[in-house]
Amino acid sequence: MTDEDRLARVALTRLTEPGDPKIASLVAQLGAVKLHALLSDPEQSTPEALDVASRLRGHDPAAELERGERLGLRYVVPGDDEWPTQVDDLIRAETLDHRGGPPLGLWVKGPTRLDRLGRAVAVVGARSATTYGTEVATQIASTLVRAGHPVVSGAAFGIDQAAHRGALAVDGANVAVLACGADRVYPTAHRDLLDHLGRTSAVVAEVPPGCAPTRGRFLSRNRLISALTRGTVVVEAAARSGALNTANWATRLNRHLMGVPGPVTSAQSQGVHELLRIGAASLVTRAEEVLEVVGDAGTHLADPPRAAPRRRDRVPPRDARVLDAVPVARAAPVDSIATTAGMALLDVQAALRRLVRDGLVEQMPQGWRLTSEAHE
Amino acid sequence: MTDEDRLARVALTRLTEPGDPKIASLVAQLGAVKLHALLSDPEQSTPEALDVASRLRGHDPAAELERGERLGLRYVVPGDDEWPTQVDDLIRAETLDHRGGPPLGLWVKGPTRLDRLGRAVAVVGARSATTYGTEVATQIASTLVRAGHPVVSGAAFGIDQAAHRGALAVDGANVAVLACGADRVYPTAHRDLLDHLGRTSAVVAEVPPGCAPTRGRFLSRNRLISALTRGTVVVEAAARSGALNTANWATRLNRHLMGVPGPVTSAQSQGVHELLRIGAASLVTRAEEVLEVVGDAGTHLADPPRAAPRRRDRVPPRDARVLDAVPVARAAPVDSIATTAGMALLDVQAALRRLVRDGLVEQMPQGWRLTSEAHE
Repeated sequence: MTDEDRLARVALTRLTEPGDPKIASLVAQLGAVKLHALLSDPEQSTPEALDVASRLRGHDPAAELERGERLGLRYVVPGDDEWPTQVDDLIRAETLDHRGGPPLGLWVKGPTRLDRLGRAVAVVGARSATTYGTEVATQIASTLVRAGHPVVSGAAFGIDQAAHRGALAVDGANVAVLACGADRVYPTAHRDLLDHLGRTSAVVAEVPPGCAPTRGRFLSRNRLISALTRGTVVVEAAARSGALNTANWATRLNRHLMGVPGPVTSAQSQGVHELLRIGAASLVTRAEEVLEVVGDAGTHLADPPRAAPRRRDRVPPRDARVLDAVPVARAAPVDSIATTAGMALLDVQAALRRLVRDGLVEQMPQGWRLTSEAHE
Repeated sequence: MTDEDRLARVALTRLTEPGDPKIASLVAQLGAVKLHALLSDPEQSTPEALDVASRLRGHDPAAELERGERLGLRYVVPGDDEWPTQVDDLIRAETLDHRGGPPLGLWVKGPTRLDRLGRAVAVVGARSATTYGTEVATQIASTLVRAGHPVVSGAAFGIDQAAHRGALAVDGANVAVLACGADRVYPTAHRDLLDHLGRTSAVVAEVPPGCAPTRGRFLSRNRLISALTRGTVVVEAAARSGALNTANWATRLNRHLMGVPGPVTSAQSQGVHELLRIGAASLVTRAEEVLEVVGDAGTHLADPPRAAPRRRDRVPPRDARVLDAVPVARAAPVDSIATTAGMALLDVQAALRRLVRDGLVEQMPQGWRLTSEAHE
C-alpha cells in the first residue's frame, strides 16, 4: 500500500468510530485516499459535511504515525504483508444496530505479526468469573498455545485475564485486543499484563493511540476478537455478558463457537448454557476438544473420556455370562445361577471358580455373590 | 387377556431372563399360551428342550400369582387396562448383545396404575453422585411431578435416590423400577424409600417376586425405565456409568434424551458431557427446560434466563448514542464525547445532564465518565 493510503486511513480512523460499516463500505468502493479527499473538500454543501472537512484539515496523520512510532506502535493496513486478511470477512457482517465492517487499519504494539494469527483461537468470558471458570480458561489457553494456536482475548478482568495468564505460562503468541488505544492501559490494574504482552507478543487496537474505551468501542472490539480467530471459546458468561456479544460475532462470521459448561446453579454459566442449548455453540470440556474443532483436519482427534479399565472387561464371554447371573447382594447357590445364566451346572461351577480367582465373585455360606469390585 | 395367557406369561418369566428378545419374538408370533404349551411338551427331541419342559412342568404359575398377591403384588400383562402400551416399542429394539424386547408382564406393588405413566419422565444418574448432582436431581424431579409428570427412576444410591426424594416432596406419581423382585429391597439401605413408594406410588419389576438383582437384570431393567417414559434426564454420569446404558435405550427407543451439564472438572459429569457433545442428548439446566422438551406442545415454553433489567436498558436511543461515547475510565470533556458520538455539542450536553440524573454518567473535574452501574 502507498503511504498516501496509509495516511488517509489514519485520518479516517480519527474521524469515525470503529466498526462503522458505512465508512467501511465507502472505503471498499472508492478507496481510502479518494474518500479522504472527497470528505476533506472545503466546498461542501451541508454544515455537517463542512464540519467533517474542517476536522479532517485540522488533523495531521503523518504526525500521528510518528507519534505512534515513538510509543512503540505500528499501523498495519490492508495490503501490508502483516495484514490479517481474515478480518476482511467483516465486509459481509453488520449488526442490526449498524456495527460491522473491517477495520480501516490496526495499531499494533509488540513483536507478534498479525498475519501469523491464522490459527488463533479466542478465549473469552465473564469479567466476574468464578475460580472454576478462571482455572478452566487458564488450562485451555495454555494447552492451545502449546499446540501452536495463538490465543486472543480482551485483557479484561476474569476469564480474559485468566486466558492471557494461561497463555503466558508457555511460549507462544498471546494477543490482547483493546477497546482503547494500544498505548493505553484498561483496566489500569492490568498494566503489568499489558506491558508484558506489548513486549513479548502483541497488543492490538482499532482506535488511534490515546483514545479512551467507551461502550461502543467495546462492542466494536468484540467483532475484531472473533474476526481475528478461527474460533471463540466462551468459558463463563452470565445471561447478558459482553462475552455473548463476541460469541454472536463468531456466529455471524461463520467462525467456530464453543462453550464450556459449568454448574447449572452458577449464574456465570447461564449464558454459555443458553448458547449450547440453542445449538449456537458446541460443547467443549478441555483444550483437546477445542483443538478437535479448530485444528487442521486429522491432526487433533480427542479421545473420548474413558474410565479406568475394569477387571470385568477382561472376562471372556462365556464367564461374563455367568458373571451377569451372579447376584449383587444376597448370595445364590450354583443351581440358581446356572438357571439364570441358562448354562450347564458343571460349566457354571468351573466359571465361578475362575471368577473367584479374578476377585470378581466371592463364595459365602449360602452360595456365590459379586464382590464390590465386580459390581462397580 | 385370558387367565390362561397370564399364567403362561408367569411361567415363561420364570423360565427366561428379562429382556430376552428371542422369547419376546416367539410370544409375538405364537402367543404366550401356545409357546408355553410347545415348550412344555414332554416329547422334546433334544436334551436342552427336555430340560426346559421339565422345569416348566415343575412350576405352578397359579400358586405364584397367589403368592404375589399375598405380598401385595399384581401381575400386569399386555391387554390389561393397566398395561403401559409405551413399552411395546421395545419390540423394535435390541442391543448388539441380544438384549431387548417388551417384558412378558410387569409385577407391580402400589396404587399407581402403570397406564397413567404416559407423561412420565425418567431422572437417572450416577450412584456416586456429588452434592451438586443430587441437589439438581431433587429440584428437577419435584418440579416435574408438580407439573403433572410422574418421575421414574431405579431406586439406586445417588441420583436415583435424589430423584425419588424430590418427587416425594410433592404429591404425584413416583415410580421405582427394580432389577430384583418387586417384593425385595435393593439396596437394603433404601428399605424405607421402597416401602413408602410401594404404599403411595409404585414399585415395578420384570423379574418374578423373590428374584435377586444381577448385572444382566440391571441392564434389562434400564431398558424398562427408558421405555416407560417420554424422556430420560441424565443428571450425572461418569464415563462408564450405568446411567449411560439407560440413555442409550432412550435413544434406541426414540425417546427424548436430556443431560444436565456440570463442572468440566467433575468426573461425575464426563459421561453427560460426552452425550451432549455427540448430540445424543439435549442440554437442560432446570425442570422448566425438561418440560419444554417432554411437555405437550405449547404448554411449557421456558423463558430463557435473563439478567435483571439494567437502568441502561431504559435509556432512549438518542441518549444511548451519547452513553456509548462516554469513557468508562478517565473522564472526557463534552467536545470529545460529541466527536465520538458524531452529534452536535448542545444535544450532547443536554443528553449528558439526563444521563447524570439517571445515575449512568458522572461529572468529574476533567469532564464526564460512566458510573460503575452504567459500565456493568
